Amino acid sequence: MSTKHTGSQTLTLTSPPSILSCACVGGKMEREGPLSSDFDYIDPDPYCGQTTWEKAESAMLEKAFTLALGKAAMVPSDVQYVFAGDLLNQCISSSFGLRGTGIPFFGIYGACSTMAEGLALAAMTIDGGFADTAAAVTSSHFCSAERQFRTPLEYGCQRTPTAQWTVTGAGAAILSADGPGPYVTHITPGRIVDAGITDTSNMGAAMAPAAHDTISAHFSDLGRSPDDYDLILTGDLGALGSSVLIDLFRADGIELCGRHGDCGAMIYSPDTQDVHSGGSGCGCCASVLCGHIISGMRSGKWSRVLFAATGALMSSTSSQQGESIPGISCAVSLSSTK
Amino acid sequence: MSTKHTGSQTLTLTSPPSILSCACVGGKMEREGPLSSDFDYIDPDPYCGQTTWEKAESAMLEKAFTLALGKAAMVPSDVQYVFAGDLLNQCISSSFGLRGTGIPFFGIYGACSTMAEGLALAAMTIDGGFADTAAAVTSSHFCSAERQFRTPLEYGCQRTPTAQWTVTGAGAAILSADGPGPYVTHITPGRIVDAGITDTSNMGAAMAPAAHDTISAHFSDLGRSPDDYDLILTGDLGALGSSVLIDLFRADGIELCGRHGDCGAMIYSPDTQDVHSGGSGCGCCASVLCGHIISGMRSGKWSRVLFAATGALMSSTSSQQGESIPGISCAVSLSSTK
Repeated sequence: MSTKHTGSQTLTLTSPPSILSCACVGGKMEREGPLSSDFDYIDPDPYCGQTTWEKAESAMLEKAFTLALGKAAMVPSDVQYVFAGDLLNQCISSSFGLRGTGIPFFGIYGACSTMAEGLALAAMTIDGGFADTAAAVTSSHFCSAERQFRTPLEYGCQRTPTAQWTVTGAGAAILSADGPGPYVTHITPGRIVDAGITDTSNMGAAMAPAAHDTISAHFSDLGRSPDDYDLILTGDLGALGSSVLIDLFRADGIELCGRHGDCGAMIYSPDTQDVHSGGSGCGCCASVLCGHIISGMRSGKWSRVLFAATGALMSSTSSQQGESIPGISCAVSLSSTK
Repeated sequence: MSTKHTGSQTLTLTSPPSILSCACVGGKMEREGPLSSDFDYIDPDPYCGQTTWEKAESAMLEKAFTLALGKAAMVPSDVQYVFAGDLLNQCISSSFGLRGTGIPFFGIYGACSTMAEGLALAAMTIDGGFADTAAAVTSSHFCSAERQFRTPLEYGCQRTPTAQWTVTGAGAAILSADGPGPYVTHITPGRIVDAGITDTSNMGAAMAPAAHDTISAHFSDLGRSPDDYDLILTGDLGALGSSVLIDLFRADGIELCGRHGDCGAMIYSPDTQDVHSGGSGCGCCASVLCGHIISGMRSGKWSRVLFAATGALMSSTSSQQGESIPGISCAVSLSSTK
C-alpha cells in the first residue's frame, strides 16, 4: 500500500512541501544575543503585557503565529490544520495561544524537539494529500520553565556549569504544497534513547545520544554523510551536548565539525551572557529555525540543512522518582530546491 | 496537490487503514464495572508492582501495547511509528512506557481525546503512504491524576456531583494498511472550543461544546446524520456532559438519543460505584474503544461507529490563574467494511 517508506526510519516526501512563511518572537535575553536581528518581534517585558508568565508565553506563541500568517497574507481560516505543543504542563501555552484561531488542532509533545515534530507532521499531512496548508507552532519561556521544572525564580538558585538557559521565545512555520521553499524533503522521526543520565541540569548530555541515533539513521537510510549538508543543526544540545554529539560521531569515524551547528549554542553570546551551556526550550530551535536559518537559506547562505531538534522526555516528577532522562530527536531535511 | 480533503474539516481516507489488533488494561474499579469482561488484563493493584502510581501507569500502558502486539503476532520492530500521549505532566507515562520499544515515536497531547488523535494520525500516516503499520497508545490512572490535577488522595476531598472518576487503564491499537477491520474511513480533527466553563469538577460541561462542534462539522462535511451511524460514541463526557451534548444537538433539530453512547457513562455502574458523573481520563475511551467497542464491531453488534473522543486542554496552573477550560474533540469514523 505504501510508496514513500522503504522499511527504513526515514520518510522521503514525494512532493516536498514548502515552508511558505515563518516568524519568531523573543525576549530581552534574545535581543542581547547574536541573532537579535533575525527576530521578527522582541518584547523585553517578561510578562508581555499579561498578568502571568504562562499567559505571556501563550501571547508570544500567538504573536509568532499571527506574524507568520501576516507574511503569507493569510487569515487563520486559510490554515487547515495546526500542530502545536510546548513545555508547560498539559501544553497550555499552545492550547490557550491558539484557542481563538478556530483551526483544527493537533496537540503534540516532543519537549524541546517539538518544532521538528510539528514540521514533520505538517509536512506529512500535506504530502499525504490531507491538506494544502498546515502549520507548526511552539514556544518556551525562561520564567515559566524555571518555576515549573526547577526552583522558584525568587529562590535565586545557583546554576551548574552544564545548565542551559530556557529561551523566552516562540516560532511558527506555515507549510504549503507549493511555495518558495525551503522544502521539507525527508523526515527521520526519532526513537526514544535513554543513556541513563539523571542530572536534570545536564540536558545536553541526556539528549546527545538521541541526536546521534536519529542523525545516524538518517545518514544510513539515505546513504548520506555530513558532506551532503551545508549545516547539520541540532536543537538545543548547548556547548556540552554538542561536544558529546561530535565525540559520538567520531567514534563512528564520522566528522561533524565544520558542518555542525546547535541552536542552543548559537542564540546567546557565552562571553557576555550568563547562560552557561547555552539556550534550551521549545522556543530555542523554533525561533532560531524560523528566523536565522530560514532567512539564511533564502539568502543562499545554506542550501541543504538537516534540522535535528532534540528533546528530553522527563518531568520533575520522573526525576524526583529517580528516573533517568529519555531523549528524543526528530530530524527534518530542508532543501532550497525540490 | 491534494486529493483527500475538499476544503472541509473532515478527511476521507482513500485506502481506509484497518485496526489490526488492540488491547486494553484496567484496574480494580474497572473490574467492578459493567465492561469488566472486555478488558484483556486487569491489575487490581494500583501500583501494578511498581513503587509509584506514575510508574504503575507507565507499566499499564506498556502492558496494553505488549498485549496488542501479541494479538497481531508482532514484535515492536514490526511497528514503524507510534503515536502516544497521556495526562501526566510532560506525558511521562507514554515516554517511559515506550522507551524500551525502539519504535520511532511521536508524542501527542489531546488530553482525554488522545486516543482519537493517535488513531487519526496513525491512520493518516498509513493512508498517506508513510507506513504499513502504526500504533496509537494512551493511559490514565486515578491516583496519579488526582494528585496532579486535584488534591492529595490522603486529603480525602469530597467530590462534587458533576465530578468524574479518572479511569485506571490503558488502551493500544495497532493499525495497518490491510487487515480485518474495523477500518478508519474518515477523520474530523477538532477545533479548540472554549465555552467559558471554569469549574474543574465539571469537565463534561466544558467538553460537550467541543464534541458538538466536531460532530456537527463531521455531519455537515459528509452530508451525514445520526442515522448513518449505529453508535455515536463520545469520549468521556459522563452523564452530565452527555445530557449537555444531547441538548446542544436538539437545539439544532438533531436527535442523538438512541444512537449516542459515552465511554465515561458506560465504564462504571453509577448505582453501585461511587463515580458521580462517570469515568474520565485518556484511559477511559481508550480502554472502552480497544475492548468493548472493537469487539462489538467485530461480532456484528455495530457496523458504523463515530468515535468522538473529548479532551479538556487545561492544567491546574491555568485554572489557578482564573482561565476557563478549552475543550477539544477529535472524531474518527470506524466502519466494519471499507
